[in-house]
Amino acid sequence: MDFGFDAQTEDYRKRLLAFMDEHVYPAEAGYHSGDGWGPPPILETLKAAAKSAGLWNLFLPGEHGAGLTNLQYAPLAEITGRSPAIAPAALNCAAPDTGNMEVLAEFGTDEQKRQWLTPLLDGTIRSAFAMTEPQVASSDATNIGTRIERDGDEYVINGRKFYITGAMNPNCRIFIVMGKTDPDAARHVQQSQVLVPRDTPGLTVERGMTVFGYTDGDHGGHAELIFDNVRVPVSNLIGEEGGGFAISQARLGPGRIHHCMRLIGMAERALELMCTRALSRTPFGKPLAEQGVVQDWIAESRVRIEQARLLVLKAAWLMDTVGNKGAHTEIQAIKIIVPSTVEWIVDKAIQAHGAAGTSQDTPLAALWVAARTLRLADGPDEVHKRSLARRELNRYRSTT
Amino acid sequence: MDFGFDAQTEDYRKRLLAFMDEHVYPAEAGYHSGDGWGPPPILETLKAAAKSAGLWNLFLPGEHGAGLTNLQYAPLAEITGRSPAIAPAALNCAAPDTGNMEVLAEFGTDEQKRQWLTPLLDGTIRSAFAMTEPQVASSDATNIGTRIERDGDEYVINGRKFYITGAMNPNCRIFIVMGKTDPDAARHVQQSQVLVPRDTPGLTVERGMTVFGYTDGDHGGHAELIFDNVRVPVSNLIGEEGGGFAISQARLGPGRIHHCMRLIGMAERALELMCTRALSRTPFGKPLAEQGVVQDWIAESRVRIEQARLLVLKAAWLMDTVGNKGAHTEIQAIKIIVPSTVEWIVDKAIQAHGAAGTSQDTPLAALWVAARTLRLADGPDEVHKRSLARRELNRYRSTT
Amino acid sequence: MDFGFDAQTEDYRKRLLAFMDEHVYPAEAGYHSGDGWGPPPILETLKAAAKSAGLWNLFLPGEHGAGLTNLQYAPLAEITGRSPAIAPAALNCAAPDTGNMEVLAEFGTDEQKRQWLTPLLDGTIRSAFAMTEPQVASSDATNIGTRIERDGDEYVINGRKFYITGAMNPNCRIFIVMGKTDPDAARHVQQSQVLVPRDTPGLTVERGMTVFGYTDGDHGGHAELIFDNVRVPVSNLIGEEGGGFAISQARLGPGRIHHCMRLIGMAERALELMCTRALSRTPFGKPLAEQGVVQDWIAESRVRIEQARLLVLKAAWLMDTVGNKGAHTEIQAIKIIVPSTVEWIVDKAIQAHGAAGTSQDTPLAALWVAARTLRLADGPDEVHKRSLARRELNRYRSTT
Amino acid sequence: MDFGFDAQTEDYRKRLLAFMDEHVYPAEAGYHSGDGWGPPPILETLKAAAKSAGLWNLFLPGEHGAGLTNLQYAPLAEITGRSPAIAPAALNCAAPDTGNMEVLAEFGTDEQKRQWLTPLLDGTIRSAFAMTEPQVASSDATNIGTRIERDGDEYVINGRKFYITGAMNPNCRIFIVMGKTDPDAARHVQQSQVLVPRDTPGLTVERGMTVFGYTDGDHGGHAELIFDNVRVPVSNLIGEEGGGFAISQARLGPGRIHHCMRLIGMAERALELMCTRALSRTPFGKPLAEQGVVQDWIAESRVRIEQARLLVLKAAWLMDTVGNKGAHTEIQAIKIIVPSTVEWIVDKAIQAHGAAGTSQDTPLAALWVAARTLRLADGPDEVHKRSLARRELNRYRSTT
Repeated sequence: MDFGFDAQTEDYRKRLLAFMDEHVYPAEAGYHSGDGWGPPPILETLKAAAKSAGLWNLFLPGEHGAGLTNLQYAPLAEITGRSPAIAPAALNCAAPDTGNMEVLAEFGTDEQKRQWLTPLLDGTIRSAFAMTEPQVASSDATNIGTRIERDGDEYVINGRKFYITGAMNPNCRIFIVMGKTDPDAARHVQQSQVLVPRDTPGLTVERGMTVFGYTDGDHGGHAELIFDNVRVPVSNLIGEEGGGFAISQARLGPGRIHHCMRLIGMAERALELMCTRALSRTPFGKPLAEQGVVQDWIAESRVRIEQARLLVLKAAWLMDTVGNKGAHTEIQAIKIIVPSTVEWIVDKAIQAHGAAGTSQDTPLAALWVAARTLRLADGPDEVHKRSLARRELNRYRSTT
Repeated sequence: MDFGFDAQTEDYRKRLLAFMDEHVYPAEAGYHSGDGWGPPPILETLKAAAKSAGLWNLFLPGEHGAGLTNLQYAPLAEITGRSPAIAPAALNCAAPDTGNMEVLAEFGTDEQKRQWLTPLLDGTIRSAFAMTEPQVASSDATNIGTRIERDGDEYVINGRKFYITGAMNPNCRIFIVMGKTDPDAARHVQQSQVLVPRDTPGLTVERGMTVFGYTDGDHGGHAELIFDNVRVPVSNLIGEEGGGFAISQARLGPGRIHHCMRLIGMAERALELMCTRALSRTPFGKPLAEQGVVQDWIAESRVRIEQARLLVLKAAWLMDTVGNKGAHTEIQAIKIIVPSTVEWIVDKAIQAHGAAGTSQDTPLAALWVAARTLRLADGPDEVHKRSLARRELNRYRSTT
Repeated sequence: MDFGFDAQTEDYRKRLLAFMDEHVYPAEAGYHSGDGWGPPPILETLKAAAKSAGLWNLFLPGEHGAGLTNLQYAPLAEITGRSPAIAPAALNCAAPDTGNMEVLAEFGTDEQKRQWLTPLLDGTIRSAFAMTEPQVASSDATNIGTRIERDGDEYVINGRKFYITGAMNPNCRIFIVMGKTDPDAARHVQQSQVLVPRDTPGLTVERGMTVFGYTDGDHGGHAELIFDNVRVPVSNLIGEEGGGFAISQARLGPGRIHHCMRLIGMAERALELMCTRALSRTPFGKPLAEQGVVQDWIAESRVRIEQARLLVLKAAWLMDTVGNKGAHTEIQAIKIIVPSTVEWIVDKAIQAHGAAGTSQDTPLAALWVAARTLRLADGPDEVHKRSLARRELNRYRSTT
Repeated sequence: MDFGFDAQTEDYRKRLLAFMDEHVYPAEAGYHSGDGWGPPPILETLKAAAKSAGLWNLFLPGEHGAGLTNLQYAPLAEITGRSPAIAPAALNCAAPDTGNMEVLAEFGTDEQKRQWLTPLLDGTIRSAFAMTEPQVASSDATNIGTRIERDGDEYVINGRKFYITGAMNPNCRIFIVMGKTDPDAARHVQQSQVLVPRDTPGLTVERGMTVFGYTDGDHGGHAELIFDNVRVPVSNLIGEEGGGFAISQARLGPGRIHHCMRLIGMAERALELMCTRALSRTPFGKPLAEQGVVQDWIAESRVRIEQARLLVLKAAWLMDTVGNKGAHTEIQAIKIIVPSTVEWIVDKAIQAHGAAGTSQDTPLAALWVAARTLRLADGPDEVHKRSLARRELNRYRSTT
């Protein structure tokens, strides 16, 4: 057992921390999409800088990416989480492109890779993943209503999706769409995933959905999509028919590590802001930093961050050593605990800032929303708790 | 001891509930300020309907208003809280105008009443209250940096204010401004309040502040204001020099009752939405309404609402029977407990709605933000807890 | 709506507070049962004093008792809760005798009243209520395994009960036993209640059960009982066959008011101890009373007590005005919220006392155990939450 | 970074798990001290078995003990925590002897080692550590009132101590006593530690203190001690005069690892009991194991245990690699988070057991008390939070 980072990780951390100081934090103040949907122009400058600094596609194992393990990439994802609207995009490590690239790298045909993976790896286009639907509890994949029906050499897609992150960005050129090819098949082989280019007739990007008032315009918003007899060639199928659920499971593991480590970074940022605020404000003649309740928040935040980070790192280590399946409990555990933990910490940082903490003058309100929505994304925490509990109970079923 | 409403209150409740059904809820879907700052045109229609229904200025005791006691108005404020962006404004019972009208009715000169109270009571103009400042912990009134200096027959005002609710609305014509007339006086007589019309030279409405991404444009946003040698006649002083702190304390009591009862209404709305959602969604083959965790949320919500409402009603009763001072502990208690309680309930309602709960498709995200910011408004909860604890401890000081 | 006590209640409160000061608190230090099971001799002195002070059987409405309403008795029960091991017993207002006396007064035959109610009202004997069983989830009355079978003019009882409070006390002369007379009947008419004198052959008081290490010897412990072909005459039936569940429901309402108000009194006692301790201890050069975290505990405790008390009083008022059934939600609500609230408060008082708070040198550890066990008594909180949630949901069932 | 145990640790774990199954769990049912103070006779059998199994003094690094690192011993301490009243004592790894042996091994003279360390290592005597005092906040060492005054070749000790764990056991032969040799010296060099044999004249073991009703008689209780002109030779000084605080700090690090890992074991035991209970009880026609709220408890428990264990293991690793000082934050962090976490888990296990969970029929109530009291032992959590917060804030002091 050893809790130290290896040399390669330390080297990347050092370079990434320098990149944050030199490029990312200075870009924060003016980073707004304006009235449009998509990042401000400075992102291209940042991407170029990241590429030349060797900090590009760090998330992707294997030949197509930086070749890091999950355990090596995790602490880097944490650092990008300190500025979550900018750093992941600057390093071409932003969701949902990361998951889409992983899926294409693992399950894509050569042609699919050439057409979509290559520009995604180059950072010239963006992508989206269309799974969630407005009318059903999407945490249960068998609820999916979107149909993908074969008609000769084509698939015909009909349905409605919402909260499709990034889809409002006009540069989001390709959608991976989850739908049912065979509603009568067994529970987990009803679904398939197909590639749908943005300009396919019948596909309408209807509107952006807000999250607690934010449009998230600078990373392409969250769109409601309508698929009305959308036709794509059968070669746009990813993997095989009925493989949609399995593919979406495969992307979950790394995605949760990424999300959770970025959340840890957000928590560190919030704690840093809470501390500096507490040292600088003096209501009623005493610095906030000497108020017992504020100290309690700071101590609790530090302790909870340390606990949560270790659990995410262990989940990453398990994924690297025993695979997604062996890491199942830990992957669910981090999904359950990290968003709520970080939400709690950011809430306290906001409280220490007074009204300013809720405004555009600090990153805190946006960090809070990011943490809060991750209690829902990929299924609400409650679904994961129930599942984890059942596995725990199964250990004792034979003995009673 | 009697927990029933009196006949007059029951009559008002009945009529107000009907008004909500007939006028307010139907207006919710399209209620947006568009790109401007201020309410949509339909508000004028609603105001006319409220006037003709005898549901106007209900908040105001005495000759100028409906003449209700705090205990009688409280359950009506709760009902308006079910649609907090519309109902209070429709009934001319919205903050900060309510507090400003109370102050003018109690402390204003005849001329001040003629010029500002009358149009406010008529609902033809709006107003704002400029106290909070960006550079200091505003929960401590002695921190106020804005200066109000006498120069002959005028006051000269210099300073910066922020989070001034309603001030972005062009129809907000008058500001009550808190500043220091004598920084060297005793702690609570340094401050004065003066009336500053919107178009006074030197006053700049600089920008709107967001709250968790919301501009709150439809009720006039939250502005940052700059006062640069703003001059008003000395007759614009409210009450007397040095009386600013006392006046602001006087408005706090009723204001907290109003805020807290509206919060109770928001919680009831959220609980209703949680229940109807839980009955209509069936992930994994079982209605949410039969999930133990969701039932736990619903039961906890009901119990917490019942507790909180009783405490607010008791605080109102104490204000009516023994005055602001005798109700001090209860007024602080409701400020401490109600926002966090309602925040918790709305959070659970959001969780039961999945991603939709965070979007513009339900009122929940906006309700959450309203509850969250009231943990900060009028001073963070922590300041009030400390103060309440000291009074509790004082009961035992002589005995040890 | 009126939050003041009536004159009769105020008079009783004054006299009871004087009785506590004069008789109860001074008796606390030496109040131990020694090695036996039952109260120390001083209790008889206290009972005599209570009788002569007109503070006897206050819990019981109607001709047999003081004739107070639930709303009038509730604040008196609170006061007795400040010294829960002594005051209720001194006033002949201690569970489970109170519930047993209520049942006998309402459902008992004249002979049953003569034989058992009279000495209980006189305080010459004690009693117990035998419902909970070791092998089943007793919150579900249909689980009860004890059989009460008619055999000629007798009932034959077989079964095992545990956690039967008071039963170790040799002066506990009579048990009300719940069992099934007809296991095949409809769900809520399978059970009956019969009177079983302590010395009936076949009844064994097996052992005392501890609660968190306490034997509760001074109020008769919590016994495991074995009924092995215990025979009683059919005239020992209370009410009618199959009426056991209904009778036990009838006793629940007042019992919960009593328990919850006593808990409020315990919380007030704990808060008082927390405050006096905080004022007297000065670790690290600063009184505990000036530590922000301790102030936070004190403020939270005060606010939670005020909320909880109002809810219990409202439940009592509803019982008096619309009956047990109309007060159903509130009676469940207080069972759900009061024990956990008081547990929280006592925990903080213990923490402020350091190790001494867990020892016999303060009443706190015992108060904590009393609150904790009431999260389980009469069914775990979770059962009541589920039930309350279902009723809340039912309000919306028709609308979806 | 590597989250796997090394081979030696795995070997010890396997053997210790077998020992638990073969010897410890079977001894649980009858393990009571009866009316005396001290363990039942079976403990000697268990100790012999542990010795012959090579599971003896595992806690002690270096030549005198098993020579394991903190990181190696930690998972073994966890296992002993599954039966905390028996296993640690059986393996001669029980507090406070472990800390006393560490202190003697590190700071003791040869003669002190011969006389006291040898029999302690052999398990023929027990010991106690007398620091806490009844009249002061003992978390602040400068508050200590006990005097140790030199008089020729002797030290004269006067003072009162309480909550001295193990001291009621007649076989507790030696006390390490903390007192002030120089009250006028600098804050942390006022204190010294001296060895005081049990039978020294002037030393009175006054009484046992209960913890939530438990006497803890089977491990020697918690005594109040009076030192009235107790005289010991100056050669009984441990280390040097004024070194008492430093010595007590040295013992804290390993002690917290031991305590926290045993707590993790207790939590695992409670979770196991909660699961088996949930699978076996079926109130209202549905197993507890299928109740959403119970599943929530189980999932939360598993996640919290995983987090807490990793943090304790990291603290152990830091102690081994960078020393007590470098591990300061983590050692405080585990003291802050582990007891409250485990208390929460055990509380839920109790709730799942109903009344039985509070009784002597399960180990749960005693486990709860063990966790609860560790929120106070070695100073209340709040003191550690404040200290940790200050160090966190110090990181930002220069930057503001």
